[in-house]
Amino acid sequence: MAILSVGVFGGYLLGQTVRGEIDSTSTLSLAAAQPPKHDTSPATLQAAWSDFKNIVGEENVSTQTDELKSHAGSEWSSYPTLPGDVPFAIVKPGSTEEVSEVMKVCHRRRIPVTAYSGGTSLEGHFAATRGGICISFARMDQILTLHKDDLDVVVQPAVGWEYLNEELAEQGLFFPPDPGPGAMIGGMIGTGCSGTNAYRYGTMKDWVISLTVVMADGSIVKTKQRPRKSSAGYDLTRTFIGSEGTLGLVTEAVLKVTPKPQNTSVAVCTFPSIRDAANCVFKVVGASVPIAAIEILDDVQMRCINDAGATSRSWQEAPTLFFKFTGTQTAVKESISQVQKLAKGTGSKTFEFAKNAEEGAELWQARKEALWSVMAKKRTNADHVWTTDVAVPLSSLADIIDETKADIAKSELTGSIVGHVGDGNFHAIILYNDEEHDIAEGVVHRMVKRAVEMEGTATGEHGVGLVKRDYLEHEIGLEGVALMRKMKQALDPLCLLNCDKVVRMQRPKPGEVMEW
Amino acid sequence: MAILSVGVFGGYLLGQTVRGEIDSTSTLSLAAAQPPKHDTSPATLQAAWSDFKNIVGEENVSTQTDELKSHAGSEWSSYPTLPGDVPFAIVKPGSTEEVSEVMKVCHRRRIPVTAYSGGTSLEGHFAATRGGICISFARMDQILTLHKDDLDVVVQPAVGWEYLNEELAEQGLFFPPDPGPGAMIGGMIGTGCSGTNAYRYGTMKDWVISLTVVMADGSIVKTKQRPRKSSAGYDLTRTFIGSEGTLGLVTEAVLKVTPKPQNTSVAVCTFPSIRDAANCVFKVVGASVPIAAIEILDDVQMRCINDAGATSRSWQEAPTLFFKFTGTQTAVKESISQVQKLAKGTGSKTFEFAKNAEEGAELWQARKEALWSVMAKKRTNADHVWTTDVAVPLSSLADIIDETKADIAKSELTGSIVGHVGDGNFHAIILYNDEEHDIAEGVVHRMVKRAVEMEGTATGEHGVGLVKRDYLEHEIGLEGVALMRKMKQALDPLCLLNCDKVVRMQRPKPGEVMEW
Repeated sequence: MAILSVGVFGGYLLGQTVRGEIDSTSTLSLAAAQPPKHDTSPATLQAAWSDFKNIVGEENVSTQTDELKSHAGSEWSSYPTLPGDVPFAIVKPGSTEEVSEVMKVCHRRRIPVTAYSGGTSLEGHFAATRGGICISFARMDQILTLHKDDLDVVVQPAVGWEYLNEELAEQGLFFPPDPGPGAMIGGMIGTGCSGTNAYRYGTMKDWVISLTVVMADGSIVKTKQRPRKSSAGYDLTRTFIGSEGTLGLVTEAVLKVTPKPQNTSVAVCTFPSIRDAANCVFKVVGASVPIAAIEILDDVQMRCINDAGATSRSWQEAPTLFFKFTGTQTAVKESISQVQKLAKGTGSKTFEFAKNAEEGAELWQARKEALWSVMAKKRTNADHVWTTDVAVPLSSLADIIDETKADIAKSELTGSIVGHVGDGNFHAIILYNDEEHDIAEGVVHRMVKRAVEMEGTATGEHGVGLVKRDYLEHEIGLEGVALMRKMKQALDPLCLLNCDKVVRMQRPKPGEVMEW
Repeated sequence: MAILSVGVFGGYLLGQTVRGEIDSTSTLSLAAAQPPKHDTSPATLQAAWSDFKNIVGEENVSTQTDELKSHAGSEWSSYPTLPGDVPFAIVKPGSTEEVSEVMKVCHRRRIPVTAYSGGTSLEGHFAATRGGICISFARMDQILTLHKDDLDVVVQPAVGWEYLNEELAEQGLFFPPDPGPGAMIGGMIGTGCSGTNAYRYGTMKDWVISLTVVMADGSIVKTKQRPRKSSAGYDLTRTFIGSEGTLGLVTEAVLKVTPKPQNTSVAVCTFPSIRDAANCVFKVVGASVPIAAIEILDDVQMRCINDAGATSRSWQEAPTLFFKFTGTQTAVKESISQVQKLAKGTGSKTFEFAKNAEEGAELWQARKEALWSVMAKKRTNADHVWTTDVAVPLSSLADIIDETKADIAKSELTGSIVGHVGDGNFHAIILYNDEEHDIAEGVVHRMVKRAVEMEGTATGEHGVGLVKRDYLEHEIGLEGVALMRKMKQALDPLCLLNCDKVVRMQRPKPGEVMEW
């Protein structure tokens, strides 16, 4: 015991430094962090495979090459999955208890884990950079209980938001977060996603009441019961939302739902410039006009939609605002007329609004086709689409869009701008092939740098994953990242869960991080 | 080094166990937690006093008995502050840097710290159970920058929400969270408070963009920049909101603001029973009628308001709903008429609505007078008011209010019910004297137990502090609390910040925890 009273000593034991020096700090710097010490030796994986089989059944453990690959990356992702970034096996548990048992095996054997639900994330979130296993939630795809009177619904992680809304619609209810098609609740929680409804309804962060989470050591935590409002203890629910599967695995979620709006209408209006459109948004937001969504599409995006013939009509190829309105007929009518007036005052060139639901759907269709219409521009099958997003304080939005458009033009790549403009959040959708990768990367890098320098964020709704992880230090500073690292270490000391995402626990190799 | 490879050893060193056994767990049980080892010896405090004087100036360190007492408890609090629950000194820093320097001293010297801004919290949040010092934010009371176009404002912790709204109103802006009078931003963040506006606008949790926080070791963390939306990394902002000063000290906050509603109106309607009133709320919420607030006051509460003569008129002494509407005149009118129809359908006995702003203010006045009118019932100066709150899923609200009312009646205490009924959240306001303390405590205990058993929470907006801390285990389970404890240990390893609040780090004494 005496040795403990004299000061510092240290040593590695099963992957972690043990120090006589007390850690009394509130944060963990990268220099002080211990690199993960996983065990992915063939013998360990072989033994674990047998454990997994016993837990979930042989038919729910896959080692098929194609499946392994599709569970580690996608053609949508801006992270170029490396050949080694695949798991050794995909394990498909059927319940929270099975997930817990699987994690206990991984914890005991120090096997790293990635989680998979919809697989639509964009920044390399589920690349298996450390091998190990992928826990697929494919079998946990049920809507468990709808509490209609409480306006909440209990779901498993592999429920898609589109399917959920189909089911809810039958009860006159609605779940607002609307990310890309195919996204599922598990991943939506992981990234803290949002979509066009966020201006009116908030993001995923606002629509989760509580979570059941399996921790890195297999323990099962319920973050809250079902009250819509609580100030009892730390906000464990929010600890996991946006944590990209690095702090725990969500196996069940209680989501808020809301009555489906009675009426919806749409208005579309064009402006001479992005700045005029942004001014219009200020006026509308500042006047408290109740809008369900405000989206901006730039001239390039409108041209892509025309070129793709994606809608039944053709559009002016100018900066265009799409407004969605919900409420009673009277309220919707009043709001449209308010917006029309404000748009005119800020120099709108055209203003169209839907006279009925069908016209509304038709107008909104253009917004929906944005991504696909850029993809339709692919020159060959070797072309990819890089979808990225940033968010800035509202007043900087016109500046950053203008500068980003100029930068894209200079790059000679095709790149459009689509934005959730009421939130100060926008996307660039950039077409590139492998030879143009570095050019596209440069455009994205400068867009992020611009956003961060305008007091904004590297990502408004996609999450940082691998691709934007290293921007966090610029965005919130070394101390903020060191606090995230301390949380990661506390909740997942062996760094088993989605290792390398969000915060590094290991110094980057030379040249790995882009110069700021 | 060899000693490290053979397994477990342990020993105390400066207040914490150092173990050869690796802590690879994701949670921390009470059994495994180490009791805090503070140093509040006279010699240490004397030396620290001198340090503090050098940092903030002698005039900003107080050891006046009255001030020490008023910074450790209040007559509002349901926690009976014990004679020893006072700090040794109050230190008043003037900047984030000074707070950091003060915390570095406390960290080096192991002196426990409580934080103080408005002092209006109710559950013993700022009782100095470990002595040490109180950091008062009294000098940090400035609105630093209003970014009108970005709809955000940068403030220090001792800015009151009422003052903030007076200043914002001059710019046509508004900050919705409206807890009790006198509350200040620091404490509002600490408790994750809300108020009558929460149904429409959400709680404090939804109105904070980012925080500057001084951690237990004095390091300074900025949780985010100023985008209204971000999914970059862990939600550090939310980590601190509702953490009751146990994880860090908030020294600056960026708050969202929103345009002030153009028109406001109020309607008041009475029902034969709480259940009928609750049914009306369901219908209104279910029909998506845009309401700014829905409050319920029970018959006892209405009688207190009449007895106190607190408003210029007298009221039916029946369960009463107060509705607030905001929007354009047309929209408000339409909403009132929708609500009137729904109220009639659920058995309302009376329905009054304001024909102008003055009438609206007059009607709403009754809601505002709720607490004061119960206080006016004090029999002698020895009477206290116990204000408590719980929240449940919406469908359980009528049940829990009914059962709680019956329990209060049986206790023969005067106790009223006031509720943010659209959120499933309500308060009991109970009059008692020292002899009746245990009776009042019993009523509150059973109310909390009922809420928890209905899948609700021990507190919807007041926080757990000392009084409701031990309910957390029943509410979210031992594992959830153990996860909170792990977070507390990671961010404040010496347990300096508001020790004993939210989670225990030390076993309770026999009889200290009420039987469930």
